[in-house]
Amino acid sequence: MIRCKYRIHASGLLQAEQTARALAVEQTVEVPDSLISNEIEANIVGNIMSVRESEMTDPNVQPTFEAVVEFNPELAADQFPQLLNLVYGNTSINPNVKLIDCEFPDSFVARFNGPRFGVEGLRDLLGVFDRPLVCTALKPRGRSNDHFAEIARHFALGGGDLIKDDHNLISAQFDDFADRVRKCQSAVEKASDRTGRRCLYLPYICAPTDQIRHHIEFVLQCGIAGIMVSPMLIGLDFVRALAEEYPILLMSHPTLTGTMYVNPTNGFDPGLFIGTFMRLIGIDASIFTNFGGRFNLSRDDCLAIATHLQRPLGKLAPVWPVPAGGMQFDRIEQMCRDYGHDTILLVGGALLERSPSLMDSTREFMDRARERFSERLT
Amino acid sequence: MIRCKYRIHASGLLQAEQTARALAVEQTVEVPDSLISNEIEANIVGNIMSVRESEMTDPNVQPTFEAVVEFNPELAADQFPQLLNLVYGNTSINPNVKLIDCEFPDSFVARFNGPRFGVEGLRDLLGVFDRPLVCTALKPRGRSNDHFAEIARHFALGGGDLIKDDHNLISAQFDDFADRVRKCQSAVEKASDRTGRRCLYLPYICAPTDQIRHHIEFVLQCGIAGIMVSPMLIGLDFVRALAEEYPILLMSHPTLTGTMYVNPTNGFDPGLFIGTFMRLIGIDASIFTNFGGRFNLSRDDCLAIATHLQRPLGKLAPVWPVPAGGMQFDRIEQMCRDYGHDTILLVGGALLERSPSLMDSTREFMDRARERFSERLT
Repeated sequence: MIRCKYRIHASGLLQAEQTARALAVEQTVEVPDSLISNEIEANIVGNIMSVRESEMTDPNVQPTFEAVVEFNPELAADQFPQLLNLVYGNTSINPNVKLIDCEFPDSFVARFNGPRFGVEGLRDLLGVFDRPLVCTALKPRGRSNDHFAEIARHFALGGGDLIKDDHNLISAQFDDFADRVRKCQSAVEKASDRTGRRCLYLPYICAPTDQIRHHIEFVLQCGIAGIMVSPMLIGLDFVRALAEEYPILLMSHPTLTGTMYVNPTNGFDPGLFIGTFMRLIGIDASIFTNFGGRFNLSRDDCLAIATHLQRPLGKLAPVWPVPAGGMQFDRIEQMCRDYGHDTILLVGGALLERSPSLMDSTREFMDRARERFSERLT
Repeated sequence: MIRCKYRIHASGLLQAEQTARALAVEQTVEVPDSLISNEIEANIVGNIMSVRESEMTDPNVQPTFEAVVEFNPELAADQFPQLLNLVYGNTSINPNVKLIDCEFPDSFVARFNGPRFGVEGLRDLLGVFDRPLVCTALKPRGRSNDHFAEIARHFALGGGDLIKDDHNLISAQFDDFADRVRKCQSAVEKASDRTGRRCLYLPYICAPTDQIRHHIEFVLQCGIAGIMVSPMLIGLDFVRALAEEYPILLMSHPTLTGTMYVNPTNGFDPGLFIGTFMRLIGIDASIFTNFGGRFNLSRDDCLAIATHLQRPLGKLAPVWPVPAGGMQFDRIEQMCRDYGHDTILLVGGALLERSPSLMDSTREFMDRARERFSERLT
């Protein structure tokens, strides 16, 4: 069974139980009780396993209850869009119900390929083991493609592992996109030749649906191993289809995801949404906004995201957590401590600001990331 | 310029102004101020037009401010995914900023085809003018395809205009989907032959991204004029691409949309999200949960959705509002009064429950919908 845990805000246990029943019906058959036959009740309506008052209660809101509801996995019809509908579709309109967690039978998870690379695959690509990876972003929008290629070159010369486009680097014209991709890829390749170690450039692809395959095929032709995408902008299941179709590493950007998890009484748990769901659709590295930066996620939420990305989930590979969002150099040690060695440390603006020499800043960043870990190279 | 109005919860005007500035930077260049050149400031960073305390303040939350920020439309790169990113992407992670409205230059809207049918096109298809349309849903999941075809037949014989699959009718097997579509379409066609008036059957298509075109091509081959889709499940821009690609009417289901607009201090205004955005991506009829039913939207929100669907928006056709969600017969008159004649009245469970004869119930429903309007047939 697909086992869902909901947090319900209600005036008391009776109301919470009514909400759970309404949800079990709404998510499956959406008809008045009079139209639910015994057979439909037994096979289709969600099963309420428990409703109880939650230990964790926010004093600013109504009492909190937790309901566990199980759904027949056949109702999800082996597909991701209907899975979203089954576990939370119409209930998303209820401001007092939040989906906290989902557990899936392995047979259901087996319908999904999951990450093509994951933690191990990316380590193999880079030939870097036993330490976190270090990533930066090409920004800001408004600078020239030559400027971005220079950033990429210096970062690669400084020993950085991954460099991605900022998610605001959007070209209305394909030619401008292609020019940036060629220049930045050439810059990291040349730098890699000098350093003797690989640095991956991940272009950002955000285009109308009907043009995305053209973009991906172009970057593959350039010999590029991975891209960044924004699942909430182009569609989660569309990303899943791309992940199955193309032998390319996928880093996800969290733009527009926030509304799905920042509200305490509605939406999804952050770990479920940008942890488990990203993994089901085949993301290899999931960016999220770390605590203590420009954004408001708590430490617990961030660690939960990392847990969702790497805990057992059928046979799906573990995924890289990519904590980001206003990370400063003085946070590197804590990020290493919090997330362990299978983490990508993403520092953007702070790296560009650090010193006149991006190569030097990158070396300093790399040294700090290595401090706690013994690096083993292939 | 793309003019966005944000509602900001802050402790005072100074904090609200800081939030507005952070947003104008975050949504465009996402770097520390030290990296923003004068040229980038002038051409790329959002322009803050005003920040003022809002008149409408909820006593349960912090003071409310409204900020108007204008963005250069070129930053949206003529595409819907990047439009979402530009107006709200990373800001979605801020629990204290809600996007209330967007105004677009006509030249920007002209990049979108919008609804292929809209209000006028669907009236032409049905040959029904000057009254609201009446729609029901095939449900509940768990009944046989023959049973659904019988519901469709009786509804069409009773004079109903539109019958859609429930959004929970999902088949893991294409053959089961095809069987339902053939049977229901045949039932409404035969009934239409008897009544002499058209009734449209709209199958629900929800499938893995890579199978959706196959489903659409099948229903087109069956002579079907329209389908229902769930943009939040399969992707908003994917729906836009389908709308451009296929000569088919699109009704949207609001499943999973709720989280995007039910929270008072984060997300989107409901009218903007299931009004304007649905229209930009080419939806012809947008279902939303009416006030006073099973869901919690307010009357103001619902009327705002209808306004967004039909107010001037470049040259895009107006769209059908489809208020739904636990609507009872005694609500028909009010729905007609609230939404006027260019509305689709969607009654599902209440119609199935009304009487032993669905045909009689449909006739009663049609009569009530006609009461306030003089029907003119072609």
